[in-house]
Amino acid sequence: MTERLPTGSVIGILGGGQLGRMLSVAASRLGFCSHIYEPGANPPAGQVAEHVTTAAYDDRTALRAFGESVDVVTYEFENVPTAALDVLEATVAIRPDRNALRISQDRLIEKDFLTGIGLAVAPYAAIDGPASLDRAIDGVGVPAILKTRRFGYDGKGQARITNPDHAVAALNEMADAPAIIEGFVEFSAEISVIAARDASGRVVCFDPGANVHRGGILRSTTVPAPISEEVLSHAVNVAGEIVTALEYVGVMGVELFVTPEGLLVNEIAPRVHNSGHWTQNGCVIDQFEQHIRAIAGWPLGDGRRHADVVMENLIGDEINQVPGLVADPAVALHLYGKAVTKPGRKMGHVNRIIGPAAS
Amino acid sequence: MTERLPTGSVIGILGGGQLGRMLSVAASRLGFCSHIYEPGANPPAGQVAEHVTTAAYDDRTALRAFGESVDVVTYEFENVPTAALDVLEATVAIRPDRNALRISQDRLIEKDFLTGIGLAVAPYAAIDGPASLDRAIDGVGVPAILKTRRFGYDGKGQARITNPDHAVAALNEMADAPAIIEGFVEFSAEISVIAARDASGRVVCFDPGANVHRGGILRSTTVPAPISEEVLSHAVNVAGEIVTALEYVGVMGVELFVTPEGLLVNEIAPRVHNSGHWTQNGCVIDQFEQHIRAIAGWPLGDGRRHADVVMENLIGDEINQVPGLVADPAVALHLYGKAVTKPGRKMGHVNRIIGPAAS
Repeated sequence: MTERLPTGSVIGILGGGQLGRMLSVAASRLGFCSHIYEPGANPPAGQVAEHVTTAAYDDRTALRAFGESVDVVTYEFENVPTAALDVLEATVAIRPDRNALRISQDRLIEKDFLTGIGLAVAPYAAIDGPASLDRAIDGVGVPAILKTRRFGYDGKGQARITNPDHAVAALNEMADAPAIIEGFVEFSAEISVIAARDASGRVVCFDPGANVHRGGILRSTTVPAPISEEVLSHAVNVAGEIVTALEYVGVMGVELFVTPEGLLVNEIAPRVHNSGHWTQNGCVIDQFEQHIRAIAGWPLGDGRRHADVVMENLIGDEINQVPGLVADPAVALHLYGKAVTKPGRKMGHVNRIIGPAAS
Repeated sequence: MTERLPTGSVIGILGGGQLGRMLSVAASRLGFCSHIYEPGANPPAGQVAEHVTTAAYDDRTALRAFGESVDVVTYEFENVPTAALDVLEATVAIRPDRNALRISQDRLIEKDFLTGIGLAVAPYAAIDGPASLDRAIDGVGVPAILKTRRFGYDGKGQARITNPDHAVAALNEMADAPAIIEGFVEFSAEISVIAARDASGRVVCFDPGANVHRGGILRSTTVPAPISEEVLSHAVNVAGEIVTALEYVGVMGVELFVTPEGLLVNEIAPRVHNSGHWTQNGCVIDQFEQHIRAIAGWPLGDGRRHADVVMENLIGDEINQVPGLVADPAVALHLYGKAVTKPGRKMGHVNRIIGPAAS
């Protein structure tokens, strides 16, 4: 599928959360319809999509019908079950492709891929049960972070190890799931690059943003990031090398640590990314439309930034700040239409316009 | 209804065309759901709305159910039948209110209202059948424009009269519908002001745009309009006087002629307006979100322009220009998802970014 999908085509989106919601809105600007596939009832994305299928990812009949009703399939999360992809791929193209999913679904495979193409990452070692822990900790040192290889997000499935004696207990809490351990990195900044690659191989990156995480959850992204022109350009090159090596089609979030020894790749996400939400109010073409353009075979936007922006997530009860935020003329609100507020739940975000883009 | 509708409330929208579509997307950014009421099947707005009712405007049962399912009703067109409003108003607030509809549904009442609050309009006279034509033409002169009092849009229901002897035939072609005749105005520019007023009486206007019509259909809007600071400020004041006199709640499009003798009000539209589409890429809060904020009792955005923009409509076959337009990095595409292309049909628009706002 390198041909250009015509206006009126249907974009299939696996996952009905806020990313699917904003992808669906972006698709509508290009005249596409969206079909959301989501196991949970009343997904936020369904409020702005023409079609919603409510079914489990192991419902082969529902998957087959979904696959036949859409012109391309994309996803808002990387943990799409392999069996679901098998069913879909029989009838419709999946973009980004399964190789990107295979790599990003498993932290060990991801690190091996990144080092394999010559990129620097934090020291890491595979953990195959308690017996391998001691040697691994010797290799990466403490403090270190123990992470499940699969199904981690927003800080879940992670434990910080400061005392090697506590490592076995931490692994037990993960039910002995396959894991990796990563050496702790002293970084001066966490940045991310939202990269896009189209089917013809053209790569366009948005300007890197500086991220602040708390409790494993992204709190804010500031653009421009306070980094040198040299680091900025290196970060963009790294992101470009990743999407090019994967022959990737779509938008990818690439998280990096800025350290005294240079840039380390933290992780990659084969999808639109929370740290790219600033593009909605900082660029003519945002990351959501950029992703839809890429997977639909349309030309990419140019990624230029017209405004300096601070994106701040509204997490849990922070949604109660909306009445004050909405009165601030520099703030663009993006709420997700979630009926229930829970601690740690992303309820919305704001893009605070700092001013015209400083060059 | 001056209280603030909470996130999760349902916005009812009468009419499922492109304006309803973009209103629904804007509502989603504030965490609202939309319910579209539209007689035609598969309306463009339905592709990005949670609920769609397909029913006629005289279907009292459907109207009643719609009214009970939403928290406020607004509309994308001014020719909403009075009987439909009667049914809805029994259960739910209509914003903007019926007085604004009553006035803008009838060109004669509109002109009388505008002159009644001291604003200048083109010379006009009521036509109550062929007998009143001669005297009316004597009053306004030729060339003149004969217009039906009701149900005109995009140049429909209008005839230019250059020879008084042809006026009776033109009136016959309008099936002797109640009409008015307007003296032809020599103007140096057609501009429009997109004004918003909230329930507390605060008025916010976007910068005036200069419009180009062809065949009665808007082709482009350029912001900033090439008018003096004095005319700009006068235009904004006129728009403010109109929404204030009406105690209006919502966004209104006010079209004006710039003439050597000053500004004349051409017409008002009690809704978001094609000439305000540039705000999607020129302002942090666009006209669609501004309208939703007003009718939901939320604070208005400040209307400031951050970019100079030329909005161009894609009419009929012009939709075929999309492959070229999408490759232009200065162009933001907004397509309406209409399945069938017809001559004169608005299929989408582009906002061409000229540069950062010239102050």
